[in-house]
Amino acid sequence: MAYRKARIKIPGIVLLTDFGTRDPFVGVLKGVLLRTGAPVPCVDLTHEVPPQDIRTAAFHLMTSYAFFPLGTLFIAIVDPGVGTPRHILYAETSKYRFLAPDNGLLSWALARETKVRVRRVENAGLGLKPVSATFHGRDIFAPAAGALTKGLSPAKLGPEAKSWEKIPFPSVWNAGEKIEGEVLVIDHFGNLITNLQPKDLDPEETWVFSVGNSGPMPWQPAYGSVAPGQPMAVSGSAGYIELSLRNGSAADQWNVQTSAKVLAQKKRTP
Amino acid sequence: MAYRKARIKIPGIVLLTDFGTRDPFVGVLKGVLLRTGAPVPCVDLTHEVPPQDIRTAAFHLMTSYAFFPLGTLFIAIVDPGVGTPRHILYAETSKYRFLAPDNGLLSWALARETKVRVRRVENAGLGLKPVSATFHGRDIFAPAAGALTKGLSPAKLGPEAKSWEKIPFPSVWNAGEKIEGEVLVIDHFGNLITNLQPKDLDPEETWVFSVGNSGPMPWQPAYGSVAPGQPMAVSGSAGYIELSLRNGSAADQWNVQTSAKVLAQKKRTP
Amino acid sequence: MAYRKARIKIPGIVLLTDFGTRDPFVGVLKGVLLRTGAPVPCVDLTHEVPPQDIRTAAFHLMTSYAFFPLGTLFIAIVDPGVGTPRHILYAETSKYRFLAPDNGLLSWALARETKVRVRRVENAGLGLKPVSATFHGRDIFAPAAGALTKGLSPAKLGPEAKSWEKIPFPSVWNAGEKIEGEVLVIDHFGNLITNLQPKDLDPEETWVFSVGNSGPMPWQPAYGSVAPGQPMAVSGSAGYIELSLRNGSAADQWNVQTSAKVLAQKKRTP
Repeated sequence: MAYRKARIKIPGIVLLTDFGTRDPFVGVLKGVLLRTGAPVPCVDLTHEVPPQDIRTAAFHLMTSYAFFPLGTLFIAIVDPGVGTPRHILYAETSKYRFLAPDNGLLSWALARETKVRVRRVENAGLGLKPVSATFHGRDIFAPAAGALTKGLSPAKLGPEAKSWEKIPFPSVWNAGEKIEGEVLVIDHFGNLITNLQPKDLDPEETWVFSVGNSGPMPWQPAYGSVAPGQPMAVSGSAGYIELSLRNGSAADQWNVQTSAKVLAQKKRTP
Repeated sequence: MAYRKARIKIPGIVLLTDFGTRDPFVGVLKGVLLRTGAPVPCVDLTHEVPPQDIRTAAFHLMTSYAFFPLGTLFIAIVDPGVGTPRHILYAETSKYRFLAPDNGLLSWALARETKVRVRRVENAGLGLKPVSATFHGRDIFAPAAGALTKGLSPAKLGPEAKSWEKIPFPSVWNAGEKIEGEVLVIDHFGNLITNLQPKDLDPEETWVFSVGNSGPMPWQPAYGSVAPGQPMAVSGSAGYIELSLRNGSAADQWNVQTSAKVLAQKKRTP
Repeated sequence: MAYRKARIKIPGIVLLTDFGTRDPFVGVLKGVLLRTGAPVPCVDLTHEVPPQDIRTAAFHLMTSYAFFPLGTLFIAIVDPGVGTPRHILYAETSKYRFLAPDNGLLSWALARETKVRVRRVENAGLGLKPVSATFHGRDIFAPAAGALTKGLSPAKLGPEAKSWEKIPFPSVWNAGEKIEGEVLVIDHFGNLITNLQPKDLDPEETWVFSVGNSGPMPWQPAYGSVAPGQPMAVSGSAGYIELSLRNGSAADQWNVQTSAKVLAQKKRTP
C-alpha cells in the first residue's frame, strides 16, 4: 500500500536532529510548527545525534522510519552547512516523506524505498523572515513542514532534484573464514552496533566475534543468555549484530569508538 | 472512584524506561503506538533510569503514578531479561493500568493499590513480527498498549498470573533515639532521596540527619530556609526525606552513591 | 493583533525549567495538567537550564517565546526559593501568558512586551493538597495552568502585583574602537552566545572578536564560511553574536565559562 495512491495526509511529524535538549532549539522549532496550525502529533526520534555526525543520523533514520505510520513526515537535521549554499531536500517515496539538508543524511533511508522523488526546497515565500544563517530548522524546515501538513502541494516547494548527495554505507569485507566490519553506532547502554548482519554469516557454522582486544565473544540469542559481566554478540533490533556486555557497557569495557574494526571468525572445531 | 466501574477508556499512556534519549528507541516505540491508531496523549515520565536499575524505576513509578488521570496506562520497561523466558505483566488496579516485565518493577506501585489483577502478556498475535530478542518495548509492549487503548479486552492478552516477582522496599531500622535508613535515589539537583518518611520521626523531638561524613543536618521547611551552600533535610515531594544542599549538590559535596546509609538522630538538649 | 482583544483561548502550554529529565518531575507536572482536563498541546522548551540559573532561563524565554502561537501560556520554573514566602506570578501581555516564580525570570521577556499585567497566584483553592515545600510545579503551577486553560478568569488567581523582581540585562560597554560584552549562554554545540548584537557594530567597519586567549575571530556569514576547526563570529539565531568553531566546540577550545568577557575591536587597515 502506498500513501500517495490512497492520498493519505501527513499523519505525524518525526524529528531527528543533533540540536541537543539543553537549548530551546527543538522547542522553538515545534513552536513554529504549532503556529502554522499543523494539527498532527510530533514525535522526537532523538536530538542527541553527535554534533555534525551525518552518518549516525543516517543510520538512525534508516533503521527507524518504517515503524511509523504510512505517510509520516520526517524532519532530519544534522546540518553543518547551514547558511552556506547547500540545498534542502524534500523527498517522497511510496511510503514516507522526508525533509533534510542535502548532505547524505537521507541516502540510506531512501535506498530502502521505492518511487523516490526529490525536490529542492527553494520557495522563500514559505519561510520565516528574516531567515537566520544558523537555524534553518526554525526558519525553513518547520514552516515547510507545516505548509505540507496543511496540504501544500510538494511542487510548490521547489524544483525536482536530478541528483543529491549520497554517502556510502560502510562495507563488510567477507573472506569466508573471517568477516570484517566496523562499529557504526554505540548506543546508550554501551552496546556496539556493527554493520554486520545475521545474513552475512553462514548459519551452519559457529561464529565468534571480537573488537579491539576484547577476546572472542560468542553469538547468543539474548543479553540474558550469558552471566552478568560476560560479553556476547546478539542480533540487534535494528537488524545488525551488536557486541554487548550483560548488564554493562561494552564500549567502556574495551574503550571502543565508532568506526572501530569488528571481526567475525568461524570457530575451529579441533 | 474506580475507572473500571465507570468503564473509563485509557486516557493516556505514560512511558518509564532506561532506554536513554540518544538512540531512537523511545521514538520508535511511539511510532508503533501511533501505527496502532491509539489516539491518546503519551507522556514521558523519564527514560534515564540508570541501565538495568529496577529499584529506581520502581521508586519513580510508585511516587508518580497517582498524579495521572484515572485509568492511565503505564508502560514501564527496565528489562535486563529481555529475550529470555521472563514474563511480561499487565496489571489492572481499581485506578490504573500497567505493563512491565515481571522483575519486581511493579511491586512498590501495586502495593499501594487495591483490587490488583495481573495477567501475563502471551498473545503472540498482538506483537510485531518477527519479535526481536532485544527490543520488546517496540515489538510487544507498544502493540499491546495500542490494542488495549483501542478497546482490546485484557483477557485477550494472556492468562491471569497467580504470582509475580516482588522486590522488598528497603527497610528502616528504628531504634528510638536513632533511625537508620538509606539513600534510594539521587535526583538531578544532587538531592539525596531517602527511605525515611516524616511519619517515622517523633514530631515532639528535634532531629538531625547525616550521611557519610556530612556532619549533622537540621530538618528545615524548605531548600531556601538555610543560607546558600548550607546543608539541610527537607520533606521531599515524593513523601520521603531528602538530604540537600542549598543551591548545590549534596551528592557531589559528600560523594554519596545510592544505598548509602542515612542516620536520623534525636538532638540532645543539654 | 492581540489575543486578548480576540479572546483567544490558550492554544498550548510551553514548559521551561531546571528540573532535568532523569527524574519524573516533568512527567508528573504533565500528569497533573492532564488531570485538569486541559486539552492543549504541551511543548518542552528545555528542562536543562543549569540548576538555579535564573539568568539562563530568562534568556531562553526572551529569545523563544515569540515563535509560539499567540496566547500561548509559558510555565517557566527555576525556583531556588520554592517553599519560602516568595511569590508566584501570572503575567499577561498583549500577546502571551506566563507563570513563573517572582525572581526575575520573566523580566527580559516582559521587557519586550506591551500591555503587561501581572498578578500574584495566591488562590490556595486551585492547588493540590497538601502543597509540598519543594515541588510547586506539580502542586501550584500545573493546577493553575490547567484551570486557566479551562477558562478560569485570571482575576481568580490572586491580586494584581504592583511590582515584581527584575534582573538587569548584562550591559555592553561601547568605547567606539572597542566594544566589550560577555558570554551569556553556552549552547549544546559549544557556541558562545554573547550579549553583543549586530546593531552594536558599525557596519562600515571590519570587526574582529575575541574571548580569553582565543586570538582574533573574523565575523562570518555562516558556520560553514571558514575551514573546519577554524574560529568565527556569526549572527546567531537568537539575535546575538555567537563565537564559534566550525564543526567543534568553542567553549572547549578556549575553556570558556558563561560571564567570560568578550571583545569586539575594529580592525586596523594599515
